Amino acid sequence: MSLLLDGLAASSGITIAPARLLVGSDLSIKKQHTADENHEVARLHDSFALSRTELQVLSQQAHHRLGQRAVTIIDTQIAILDDPTLQEKIIDRINSHHDTAEWAVKKIEDYYLNIFEHKNDNDYLYARATALRDVTKRILSHLLNVPLPDPALLDHRAIFVADNITPTDTAQFNKRYVAGIVTTNGGRTSHFTIMSKTLALPAVVGVKNATTLIHDGDMLIVDGIHGKVIVDPTNDEIEHYRLLAGKFAQEQQKWGALKDKQTVSADGRRFEVAANVGTFADIIDAQEDGAEGIGLLRTEFLYMNREELPDEEQQFTAYKRFVAAMNQQHVVARTLDIGGDKKLGMVKLPREANPYLGFRAIRIGLARPEILRPQLRALLRSSVYGRLAIMFPMIATIEEFKQARAILDEEKDKLEKEGYQIAKNIEVGMMLEIPAVAVMAEHFAKYVDFFSIGSNDLVQYMFAVDRGNQEVAYLYQELHPAVLRMVRRVIEAAHAEGKWVGMCGEMASNPIAVPLLMAMGLDEFSMNSSQILRIRSLINQLSTRKLQPLVHRAINAETAANVRKLVEEYVPEVKI
Amino acid sequence: MSLLLDGLAASSGITIAPARLLVGSDLSIKKQHTADENHEVARLHDSFALSRTELQVLSQQAHHRLGQRAVTIIDTQIAILDDPTLQEKIIDRINSHHDTAEWAVKKIEDYYLNIFEHKNDNDYLYARATALRDVTKRILSHLLNVPLPDPALLDHRAIFVADNITPTDTAQFNKRYVAGIVTTNGGRTSHFTIMSKTLALPAVVGVKNATTLIHDGDMLIVDGIHGKVIVDPTNDEIEHYRLLAGKFAQEQQKWGALKDKQTVSADGRRFEVAANVGTFADIIDAQEDGAEGIGLLRTEFLYMNREELPDEEQQFTAYKRFVAAMNQQHVVARTLDIGGDKKLGMVKLPREANPYLGFRAIRIGLARPEILRPQLRALLRSSVYGRLAIMFPMIATIEEFKQARAILDEEKDKLEKEGYQIAKNIEVGMMLEIPAVAVMAEHFAKYVDFFSIGSNDLVQYMFAVDRGNQEVAYLYQELHPAVLRMVRRVIEAAHAEGKWVGMCGEMASNPIAVPLLMAMGLDEFSMNSSQILRIRSLINQLSTRKLQPLVHRAINAETAANVRKLVEEYVPEVKI
Repeated sequence: MSLLLDGLAASSGITIAPARLLVGSDLSIKKQHTADENHEVARLHDSFALSRTELQVLSQQAHHRLGQRAVTIIDTQIAILDDPTLQEKIIDRINSHHDTAEWAVKKIEDYYLNIFEHKNDNDYLYARATALRDVTKRILSHLLNVPLPDPALLDHRAIFVADNITPTDTAQFNKRYVAGIVTTNGGRTSHFTIMSKTLALPAVVGVKNATTLIHDGDMLIVDGIHGKVIVDPTNDEIEHYRLLAGKFAQEQQKWGALKDKQTVSADGRRFEVAANVGTFADIIDAQEDGAEGIGLLRTEFLYMNREELPDEEQQFTAYKRFVAAMNQQHVVARTLDIGGDKKLGMVKLPREANPYLGFRAIRIGLARPEILRPQLRALLRSSVYGRLAIMFPMIATIEEFKQARAILDEEKDKLEKEGYQIAKNIEVGMMLEIPAVAVMAEHFAKYVDFFSIGSNDLVQYMFAVDRGNQEVAYLYQELHPAVLRMVRRVIEAAHAEGKWVGMCGEMASNPIAVPLLMAMGLDEFSMNSSQILRIRSLINQLSTRKLQPLVHRAINAETAANVRKLVEEYVPEVKI
Repeated sequence: MSLLLDGLAASSGITIAPARLLVGSDLSIKKQHTADENHEVARLHDSFALSRTELQVLSQQAHHRLGQRAVTIIDTQIAILDDPTLQEKIIDRINSHHDTAEWAVKKIEDYYLNIFEHKNDNDYLYARATALRDVTKRILSHLLNVPLPDPALLDHRAIFVADNITPTDTAQFNKRYVAGIVTTNGGRTSHFTIMSKTLALPAVVGVKNATTLIHDGDMLIVDGIHGKVIVDPTNDEIEHYRLLAGKFAQEQQKWGALKDKQTVSADGRRFEVAANVGTFADIIDAQEDGAEGIGLLRTEFLYMNREELPDEEQQFTAYKRFVAAMNQQHVVARTLDIGGDKKLGMVKLPREANPYLGFRAIRIGLARPEILRPQLRALLRSSVYGRLAIMFPMIATIEEFKQARAILDEEKDKLEKEGYQIAKNIEVGMMLEIPAVAVMAEHFAKYVDFFSIGSNDLVQYMFAVDRGNQEVAYLYQELHPAVLRMVRRVIEAAHAEGKWVGMCGEMASNPIAVPLLMAMGLDEFSMNSSQILRIRSLINQLSTRKLQPLVHRAINAETAANVRKLVEEYVPEVKI
């Protein structure tokens, strides 16, 4: 009998292969003294050297297989190994306490983690702590002669089953053999879930007890479309999923051909499918994955891993590179969106009881114009190198939009007086992610050039739910008729004023939502670039005219479950 | 020149009187040893005896002047004094450490506070810590011979100016002389703000630097309607505010006559103005203050200051008392509404990044039916003693309401089979405080008997703002057209199904909102009982028919500021 396990679909596609458990090595150590400190120091040096060599190989592999994000993760670990203070502190400890090398490494790790983690509002230190943990594991593995689990050793197609997949693990993946991933931890927005979308591997996360219920070599079906894992499937199940997987693969084949065509519905309406990006590496991915523009440029990356705010010149250089790379395709830059769960070391923010309902995004920008103004100047100056649009996040009232827009206009005037060239056609819009704004959309539509619906936050506020909170995540219902009503209202209000509407939340790449959104007239869909061709293919197959009765019924449905059922019945194309 | 200070209007009314600063006494002590432990123990006994006598007098005074809530606060302090363990511990400390009585008191206070405050999620322990602090201050004042600031010593009309007003301070107020209150601390929802409404004293809180800018004897105008304090007013200002104060007092005179009449608008439409209550003492206030029913019975009080959940019998006894006391006036009981900022020691809740978007209210009730079921049984059994209605807090989806309603019906069936009498006409409704529900109101209206709009939470979610967060509290805009649109939508949807709509947030007693709410057809206004007659008087003066053009313009306004201006122009009655 097969065993069915439920989890969260983290990355789509179906895969059938044997399981390969990736469980942590036992690196536990006890306090021990030594009489020969020199010997311990020598062992320490060896372990550092071996770790450095390994990490350099991993960095190379990551460069070829995974891209800049993974390389950065590994290079941070190399930098920690090369930091002389770390080695000095460990050696001091060996000499002064007569500790073994292992014990000294452990104590100094604790010492640093204690510092890093007490400042846990700081992204930079959080990243350092994660990196330090990974490095220490590697050093200890050499000192103890216990090999680390090595995903790179995989020599046949298999599905990794683990509690957690770390960034270093992913860097070691040999894409040829890794068929899919199942983890016990992780929610829809965890670090790994986001990475797995980049890897485009079928993955199901949050599968309870996966590492105890599944054994090495068990045959598995991982259904990353519906979030299911079948252990020891029957022949009928294998047959069924092979067919499904084949259909899905066929679809994927066809997608490649779409890359250089426009996205047009079966009844001839043009849509734009764009990418959400956060680094320059993402821009490269976006172009390879068939993006027709950048619907969301997150500018936070420029502010991370730094001690001070980036100045106007530094920002200008970065924005110019993005805007120029996309040629005449549009790039919608969002001004700094920190606060909530995103903190920066150099911007002191108050401690808040409910950060999602607190001081964040444009609220910070308006209160601290010394942060907003240089960013706007840098963006304006980059505008002549391509087709830039600017939007403000978390606008709640007309007053806020007018205030932000006035600051932008002031800086534009100043720059022109200073002799800078600024593009004439910069569109200025706003994120729409606060319920009160959707209710007032026809007023806002008079002032903005466009809306970009931030469905993730909008849905959270509409249902009073933090989707990162497992106790209540079931109330995060982006397919709910209440959400559809709000979205339709926004699109109608914008179109009545001749303005366009995009969406850059996860809803924009949800295949159940897409037919409804296109039929309601959403102009631009922006998403993680790995989803772009899939969604372009779906849009190409559907007719907005024929979908109208479906929209009508969905808007009048009572529940999110009803909407899902309606769409699945009406649009079999979304089902694979 | 007069000096104008801004703050938050905490309690309405205008007052003109000299300032009286209420600043903390210096009770600082140093570590000191004694050679004569017996002497220190004797001093300790004296200080306990003196403190007890004082507190007993205060308790009596509070009973006459302030009501049960204040008495409880003081009696808790007496109980702490009478607790033999506390004295024993202090005496032990004197004998074992040769500490002076002062120092021993301080050390034992620290010992207990450390225990209490590490469990700061617990309401009961929090209250104990506050009480212990107040008691220790009193004991030390006797040991050190430093008098505590004594509001009761006031022998002429004055306005208290303080950083904080403690519950013990309020208990000592002689209402004859206290003309008003100004504090530097405190927001709209602080403990003191709520107390000051009960006292019905003009009060302005959150006035920065009040205790340094204002001196003893300075003439003050406290405008508790608009949240302003004028220091050293000019004669013209005094004249102007005397007129205003006179008008306000005249209005207040008239209110008494309304108590036994119905609330009917000038064009003959009947409204119900009800009270929000949380204890039985509030019921007495509500009846004295002219409440036409209880629009919100907060049941949390039953769960506080306890180690275990109250059982069905205990709850039944309490609910019966409330329901019976109100006779045939309706009592709308809300099922347990914890989570968010309200925690109970005996219900373990997860730590949450954003509690307002987390596991709270009915979400807990549905996940833990062992808490919800006994409460529903107790409420159902109390229904035969009056006119009970039941509502569920924080409903977000139709599924949740159906589930809660099914549990209620199950318990009703069970009780009837067990032979209990249950009223036939119990109305079952829900709080409406989540934006998605307002958007879907016509669906919900089919299932509920009534809605009670929880405007405080609704506004918070609509604007993505925690109003307790000072950085963003300006975005908490209950007069915003977006809020009016949602409220109108809910009322229209409910009326179309023949259901009624109440409101139990602060908006229901905001004089600027009331004309709009009555013109939109809100059936029931529920509020702190001190506001009831004021609002009944306002409703009596206005015609819903004549207000329709105002509603139309307010709904189509762009900003909350526009709405306020419109109402103030159109309805001069709200202006005083």
